[in-house]
Amino acid sequence: MAEFKTVRGMRDFLPEEARLLRLVEGKAKEVACLYGYKEIVTPVVESYELLSAKAGEEVKSRMFVFKDLGERDVALRPEFTASVARLVATTLRNEPRPFRLFSVGSIYRYDEPQRGRYREFWQTNYELMGSGRPEADAEMLLLTNSLMRAAGLNKFALKVGHVGVLRGMLNQEKVVDKVQSAVMQLMDKKQYDDAFKLVENAGVSQKCMLTLRKLVELRGSDVLEVADRITELVKGYEKSVEAARNLGEILTLVLKSGCKVDMMVDAGFARGLEYYTGMILEVYVPGMDLALGGGGRYDRLIELFGGDPTPAVGVAHGVDRMMLALQEQKAMEKAVRKAGDERTVLVIPIGEELRSDALRVSQMLREAGVCVEVEVMGRKMARALEDADRRRMSYAVMVGERELKEGAVVVRDLAKREQKTVKIEEVAEKLKG
Amino acid sequence: MAEFKTVRGMRDFLPEEARLLRLVEGKAKEVACLYGYKEIVTPVVESYELLSAKAGEEVKSRMFVFKDLGERDVALRPEFTASVARLVATTLRNEPRPFRLFSVGSIYRYDEPQRGRYREFWQTNYELMGSGRPEADAEMLLLTNSLMRAAGLNKFALKVGHVGVLRGMLNQEKVVDKVQSAVMQLMDKKQYDDAFKLVENAGVSQKCMLTLRKLVELRGSDVLEVADRITELVKGYEKSVEAARNLGEILTLVLKSGCKVDMMVDAGFARGLEYYTGMILEVYVPGMDLALGGGGRYDRLIELFGGDPTPAVGVAHGVDRMMLALQEQKAMEKAVRKAGDERTVLVIPIGEELRSDALRVSQMLREAGVCVEVEVMGRKMARALEDADRRRMSYAVMVGERELKEGAVVVRDLAKREQKTVKIEEVAEKLKG
Repeated sequence: MAEFKTVRGMRDFLPEEARLLRLVEGKAKEVACLYGYKEIVTPVVESYELLSAKAGEEVKSRMFVFKDLGERDVALRPEFTASVARLVATTLRNEPRPFRLFSVGSIYRYDEPQRGRYREFWQTNYELMGSGRPEADAEMLLLTNSLMRAAGLNKFALKVGHVGVLRGMLNQEKVVDKVQSAVMQLMDKKQYDDAFKLVENAGVSQKCMLTLRKLVELRGSDVLEVADRITELVKGYEKSVEAARNLGEILTLVLKSGCKVDMMVDAGFARGLEYYTGMILEVYVPGMDLALGGGGRYDRLIELFGGDPTPAVGVAHGVDRMMLALQEQKAMEKAVRKAGDERTVLVIPIGEELRSDALRVSQMLREAGVCVEVEVMGRKMARALEDADRRRMSYAVMVGERELKEGAVVVRDLAKREQKTVKIEEVAEKLKG
Repeated sequence: MAEFKTVRGMRDFLPEEARLLRLVEGKAKEVACLYGYKEIVTPVVESYELLSAKAGEEVKSRMFVFKDLGERDVALRPEFTASVARLVATTLRNEPRPFRLFSVGSIYRYDEPQRGRYREFWQTNYELMGSGRPEADAEMLLLTNSLMRAAGLNKFALKVGHVGVLRGMLNQEKVVDKVQSAVMQLMDKKQYDDAFKLVENAGVSQKCMLTLRKLVELRGSDVLEVADRITELVKGYEKSVEAARNLGEILTLVLKSGCKVDMMVDAGFARGLEYYTGMILEVYVPGMDLALGGGGRYDRLIELFGGDPTPAVGVAHGVDRMMLALQEQKAMEKAVRKAGDERTVLVIPIGEELRSDALRVSQMLREAGVCVEVEVMGRKMARALEDADRRRMSYAVMVGERELKEGAVVVRDLAKREQKTVKIEEVAEKLKG
């Protein structure tokens, strides 16, 4: 018989990894609460029509698409935003703005598997819908910063840009939308020369080409200064100046918030998806060539899904990638140790006829909040203790006839190899203390 | 433009429902911890071969099956057990027993949607593998009882049976396996007359038919007495007597554990799936025609998945159904209120130039663990307060220039309609107190 395996690109999380996954998820929920984001849960399976409405060709070609038994064209969600937009455009249509919505769960993309990249992966997703103001953009940066810190990452930086700077120039130079999107995608992949060629071929002015070439060189972590230099550089392109000022305003709000946020502005920074309209961001970790998260402003998104015009800004973070970064930064063991801090206890009946007493003692301990396993293998005491030792459990509680008569059990500290007779009603306290 | 909708059978959880879902999930995790079950996370997408290995025809015909882009036959998991068995048969093969493994998440079945039944639904799943002893079976009953109580359900009962009683008779009467399975499935659907006909046609003895007819009448909540009557009734069928005694032993362990568990034994109780070999259980709520959970012993399961012979017992609970029962028992509002107890706070800058100060105050509050929304709509004070009122927020923190000069803000209790100037460093305490 051939061994059963996970499907290519899928994987299991064994207890230690699962604990870290839940830990990061839990931190994301805490941050959602602290910033006033309400969790919603949307289906993994959505209509293909919905999921492809805003997706570029690349995302579309990597979706898990199929027909359900009712011949509906459906797919596994490749991200949360389409589902959230659907809700905002329909069920939540008449609810008062702003919405702060949070999602966390698994998403699916048929990418080539590699380190830190699976076909099923986990994301957190925060959407703030209804506000077009810079404080909403600033909130995405602050929230992302809070999440990374809460998860235990101590080294990371936020890369910030603004698609309005480049769009403003290209619009004023009458470059058509389709070419603009192609340019953005090339820039996202840092293929600047190809991007320049495309712009040049679109018949833009000499000044535009010059500005563009200088623009992509502008980056740095003195963020307000870089924003000012961008504003200066794009003079004459009215919308670009507006965008650069908007960027400056957002950055100022973050800097004055009193939070320590490690930011850098990159004027050549673009994100592949076509629907961004303003500030964009990504989270990076030094030495890792993966963005841990990203997002930005997409003010036309809700309209695209049939809803009322609604300014919106959102950010998503890769839970798997955060886990990977935690491992790299050796912060994982610490995080897991902290999460798995509960002491483990094995309750052992000394003899068959004491099994129900062992269950009774276990239930009492559980009611007092102590995590307890009961010996269910019918092992002799010595072997049961050996097993508890090997599994690095903290305590064994031995339920024997003699002690029971006096309402007591024997509690053994497995690390110290010491044991003591303890009244049953005092065991919980002893184990927790 | 046509409205986007969820796919038939799928649904969204809006914030209040999502909160209840997470609450029940959280309780399931607590119970897992208290009983020593370690969480594992397995993929939603598994190979069709794996998922169909132990599934009956009915489950198979209701799976979401498709080919991935690599032409692999895959499906969305219709339950957790196959994935857990895969892990135990492969990755965990050489790990010391017993395993106590816990899973929670969404599963998928193409059933006809109806109240409490969706095509995507949530389950918790506990598997105890490696022990064939009655204390392991008893643990499933105790754990299920703990979970229902922890979730806040105050009325429910555990229905308990044992497939060994009937199997023992049919085996001794030389009824072939296939017919036995058909009989079990009919009995699961309470189609006793059809089941009897099938047995009769298989050419069993007169005594067998008589015993069978009496057997399905045997039920009651004086569980040990019912178990004794079953033992008495099946005399002469050796394996059946053994099974009835095993059932009695399991029930005795539960009764003596000191837990208040509302149980009833039903000798005619069967579960549709073919692979049960021993004790079986379901959770019922009075007045609801839905099982909230169920499981039992399946000692040949791991072999079926290519692993070493491993006695195993497991139970799964429907999170959605538990939510429905909570609603019916009016326990929901209480549960949600408890979960959503955190006070909500809106921080409002009095004027544009104070936005970054509002952010700063918000961050300070968040660092102190207070959940805070910032006004991002650029509303005037009166409108922002109106909005906070309408959304039943607890407090507004107004950041104004005059107070800021003295390191203070104005805190307004929205319910009491009272406000007070408070030093910034004392705000968190005031809001939490």
